[in-house]
Amino acid sequence: MRAFAPSHITGFFAAMRHDDPLKAGSIGCGLTLDLGAETIVEFASKTEIFLNELLSEAPVSRYVVDRLSRSPVRVKTSLDMPLGSGFGASGAGALGCAYALNSLFDLGLLANQTAAVAHSAEVVNRTGLGDVIAQNTGGLVVRLEPGAPGIGKVDRIPIPPLKIDYVVQGPISTREVLSDPAAMKEINKAGEAAVKELLARPTLNEFMRLSSRFTRQIGLASPWVLDAIEAVEATGGMASMIMLGDAVFSIGGAEALSEYGKVGSAMVSQRSANLD
Amino acid sequence: MRAFAPSHITGFFAAMRHDDPLKAGSIGCGLTLDLGAETIVEFASKTEIFLNELLSEAPVSRYVVDRLSRSPVRVKTSLDMPLGSGFGASGAGALGCAYALNSLFDLGLLANQTAAVAHSAEVVNRTGLGDVIAQNTGGLVVRLEPGAPGIGKVDRIPIPPLKIDYVVQGPISTREVLSDPAAMKEINKAGEAAVKELLARPTLNEFMRLSSRFTRQIGLASPWVLDAIEAVEATGGMASMIMLGDAVFSIGGAEALSEYGKVGSAMVSQRSANLD
Repeated sequence: MRAFAPSHITGFFAAMRHDDPLKAGSIGCGLTLDLGAETIVEFASKTEIFLNELLSEAPVSRYVVDRLSRSPVRVKTSLDMPLGSGFGASGAGALGCAYALNSLFDLGLLANQTAAVAHSAEVVNRTGLGDVIAQNTGGLVVRLEPGAPGIGKVDRIPIPPLKIDYVVQGPISTREVLSDPAAMKEINKAGEAAVKELLARPTLNEFMRLSSRFTRQIGLASPWVLDAIEAVEATGGMASMIMLGDAVFSIGGAEALSEYGKVGSAMVSQRSANLD
Repeated sequence: MRAFAPSHITGFFAAMRHDDPLKAGSIGCGLTLDLGAETIVEFASKTEIFLNELLSEAPVSRYVVDRLSRSPVRVKTSLDMPLGSGFGASGAGALGCAYALNSLFDLGLLANQTAAVAHSAEVVNRTGLGDVIAQNTGGLVVRLEPGAPGIGKVDRIPIPPLKIDYVVQGPISTREVLSDPAAMKEINKAGEAAVKELLARPTLNEFMRLSSRFTRQIGLASPWVLDAIEAVEATGGMASMIMLGDAVFSIGGAEALSEYGKVGSAMVSQRSANLD
């Protein structure tokens, strides 16, 4: 059995904690990208998880396997996106794993029930709070109320087919940021304000403007990130930091970005996670 | 401005009336297909709607234009699906029209708000009750609670990329069926039972089995439809009537169907309506 989940990059967010992982999550806004996670699961004599062909602990996918598999399985996930840099790779792997296991063991779960297991896996491991529900929707996704797929509330901002350019310098630990109360207070204040403003005028341009403002407000951006954003904006493009990575995404800014590293490109994925 | 909406074929349904069109709708289950409606809108000196290049009354799209346009527009919709035969063409045209107008007039509506106008247009014109919310989701969509996008509740049944074959003999008037209290009583009884049973085991095979049973229960199928379904099932395929058309859809039944007319094929659309 084989499943696909898109990447997800967040422009701004506010974390919403809850003792129940299904009710924990975030509000915010981000884009899914067609840099996918492809996951294959098959019956095996013992459970093993391979990420890009390397045997891995993969605690997020492991959480999903522990809950959904009825006998040992071999999980092989191929990740097309940069790792640890805000592309929601852990969520995409776990989400594809959940879809594939639902099918392999004929569990008869609906899409939201399937995805909710991957959401819980992210929350418990502190690797993400809103990637899975967005990856299970597809497009430019606004997270209106926190929670797992089927519990949280999302909507989409209408957009045409859209190319996103990005540069990545390195990872930022989502777990460290989420565990720092002072940082999270700043983030939540700025994130809640951005969501509120976005809903007054939910368009792509407003998403980019508010993301860029959020980046400047929360103080997590490296000088390299701030310089790259400024360089894109100086040429009339739009850019912001990928939350949470030492990375920048842009619309119409490939040339300016190229001064800051190797530019990757992807289309916004209109497709949500599903069997493949 | 340009927008896309997929076709939608319903396997079974129960109509849920309400004085408020946003709360009226249906429960049931169906598939979106990549036979799309492509809609282009542009400023014009007077409002005109063209369906497949013919100037048309197009009351469903007209309803959307009346509510969303701020000045006269020319609407050109190109429909890839059979018309009047249960493919949700009117909903797809109205939905694409709503997305394109939202963009042309920079209305700043979210996807659900945009699609809700097309849903109301269908309800008021009695051309459909559940196509728009499914077309705004994409995939094998279960309609759990009736209502417009953002108000009704839907989920998806996980499926891999899937080819659907179909034959069409002619149209059935959705308006006539929805206006016949005796027919609707039978339909709703069978439809509610099918949704309930599907949720106990939401899989593609159950969807096809329950659709076929629903077809036999509600008494709208022509002998031609019943023969075609039986022919497919005799060869090990799955088939059912397209609600509401004198038409049959099938998985793995192209050869058997070919005895009953010209076989068309389409992939299930994982993509929902959006700008294009």
